[in-house]
Amino acid sequence: MIGRKLVERLARDGELAGKRITALHAVDMFAPQPPPAPFPISTDVFDIAAGYVATKLIAGRPDAIFLLASVVSGEAEADFEKGYSINLDGTRMIFEAIRHEQSRHRDYRPRVVFTSSIAVFGAPFPEAIPDEFVNAPLTSYGTQKTICELLLSDYSRRGFFDGLAIRLPTICVRPGLPNKAASGFFSGIIREPLNGQEAVLPVSETVRHWHASPRAAIGFLLHAAALDLDKVGPRRAITLPGVSATVGEQIEALRRAAGDSAVKLIQRRPDPVIERIVAGWPTNFDASRAKALGFAAETDFDEIVRVYLEDEHVPHRP
Amino acid sequence: MIGRKLVERLARDGELAGKRITALHAVDMFAPQPPPAPFPISTDVFDIAAGYVATKLIAGRPDAIFLLASVVSGEAEADFEKGYSINLDGTRMIFEAIRHEQSRHRDYRPRVVFTSSIAVFGAPFPEAIPDEFVNAPLTSYGTQKTICELLLSDYSRRGFFDGLAIRLPTICVRPGLPNKAASGFFSGIIREPLNGQEAVLPVSETVRHWHASPRAAIGFLLHAAALDLDKVGPRRAITLPGVSATVGEQIEALRRAAGDSAVKLIQRRPDPVIERIVAGWPTNFDASRAKALGFAAETDFDEIVRVYLEDEHVPHRP
Repeated sequence: MIGRKLVERLARDGELAGKRITALHAVDMFAPQPPPAPFPISTDVFDIAAGYVATKLIAGRPDAIFLLASVVSGEAEADFEKGYSINLDGTRMIFEAIRHEQSRHRDYRPRVVFTSSIAVFGAPFPEAIPDEFVNAPLTSYGTQKTICELLLSDYSRRGFFDGLAIRLPTICVRPGLPNKAASGFFSGIIREPLNGQEAVLPVSETVRHWHASPRAAIGFLLHAAALDLDKVGPRRAITLPGVSATVGEQIEALRRAAGDSAVKLIQRRPDPVIERIVAGWPTNFDASRAKALGFAAETDFDEIVRVYLEDEHVPHRP
Repeated sequence: MIGRKLVERLARDGELAGKRITALHAVDMFAPQPPPAPFPISTDVFDIAAGYVATKLIAGRPDAIFLLASVVSGEAEADFEKGYSINLDGTRMIFEAIRHEQSRHRDYRPRVVFTSSIAVFGAPFPEAIPDEFVNAPLTSYGTQKTICELLLSDYSRRGFFDGLAIRLPTICVRPGLPNKAASGFFSGIIREPLNGQEAVLPVSETVRHWHASPRAAIGFLLHAAALDLDKVGPRRAITLPGVSATVGEQIEALRRAAGDSAVKLIQRRPDPVIERIVAGWPTNFDASRAKALGFAAETDFDEIVRVYLEDEHVPHRP
């Protein structure tokens, strides 16, 4: 979803980091459907865990590389080998391919933007997690993301590329159909009622979490691609700004946007499994470092709802 | 040095973690010279970066595994590929071999003690670095050690083995000949004068660092092998206690142990390269977590000097 929206935005802008885009190569596990664009877009279907892929991807020496590929948290927990293979080795092979390409072309030093996750942190947490908080993930997914952050910082320090790892908040409101992710309800309880559908809420209204819209996420990626990294220094992993909101606050934002009838579509159906998973997630961050570097997200959940309505052209306004 | 002393101690004790030792397998890059012991000691010369080694090492299903193998900091910085190959991939292959062995023998769950390093931390530092401080290493060596810590925590959480990563202080006073490590002078300015030799001091007396004796290091390893890891929880990387001392304080401890004549053997010869390297190193830690878990080191530098004199049977007492 983020990859598709990023390509659409680049096609619309025609430029990145103040430079005209001359070509774009979009790679996914399923054939990407590129939008019309003022530059050629090529596509490929690759599994980045395959050994031959990384060298192929880097052979054209792209100036900017966005690494969004990932096995999600639940799958990385269920399939240990697949998670490490894609989330760690797949990323590391791309880093290595860049290093090897640079050994042949000394002036090659691309910008690498890697999407990391707040799963690099594990409980117990302080009230607001600072960037200097220990990386003690409690999932294999979080471990893999943390390791990629460390590699990215080291490869950047050594001058092999100019990397930035950005820890995205949970993206909300995700467009499209409900998915099976444990975090899916955060979007579902807003999206489904706004579209006149029932939604299931499996946790209590006191659950607090950390959100940003898809539009903010694309803004993060573009800002990360353009940022002067001298200002960032050697610590190349950054927690991005977001909105810390309880489920109750989310519901009140929905009520303000779409009235009681929308809120009535939320079915409370507590699910102990999801409650337990979500209890281990961080709830709030001190993202002052990212803010000082110019990263911007929504400032309250009302704005997140508004962005969804605008960007997804939702017809239903109860 | 630590490996040799550990084997000597195990041979003397005949037991580990309250259990009689039935066999010991010592592996190094150079043929280990095992001491007489009340149990059989086998030895092998292997490079742990070689792909076939890890499975071989684990095939005998050892109950306790001490991972001390490492390319040192300077070499990992000078040879990027060698550092990652030995310090990261070599360790990961052993973790993987244990996981595969467990998939065939479900009750196999060995204790793994991994020697990490205070290099997992990078400047800027707080006055005393707590265990919850961010892992932002500024060397490839520190990056590799941090990644191994993360893997060890995840493999332990998943139940593949019971691991503990211990961040050793700089070991001081190292016995034997001077070496080329940037940290070598910390031992040299004590060891050489105690043996009637001149020593070179390349930094100012105000430089502060974090030390423990070889005897304390062996104590750490044995304690880590015996510790109830339920008390440790999921964060399996621990900063061990040590003595935070300035070079000036080291010299005064030498004076108290061996008099002015010994101190006069220290030649002040400032080396800007070593000064710059050492300036990036941490100076002090809050090791309260390790202390609460029963890890114990020396409490002042006088004790570190005394331990050297006792354990190395130094004849020279000026």
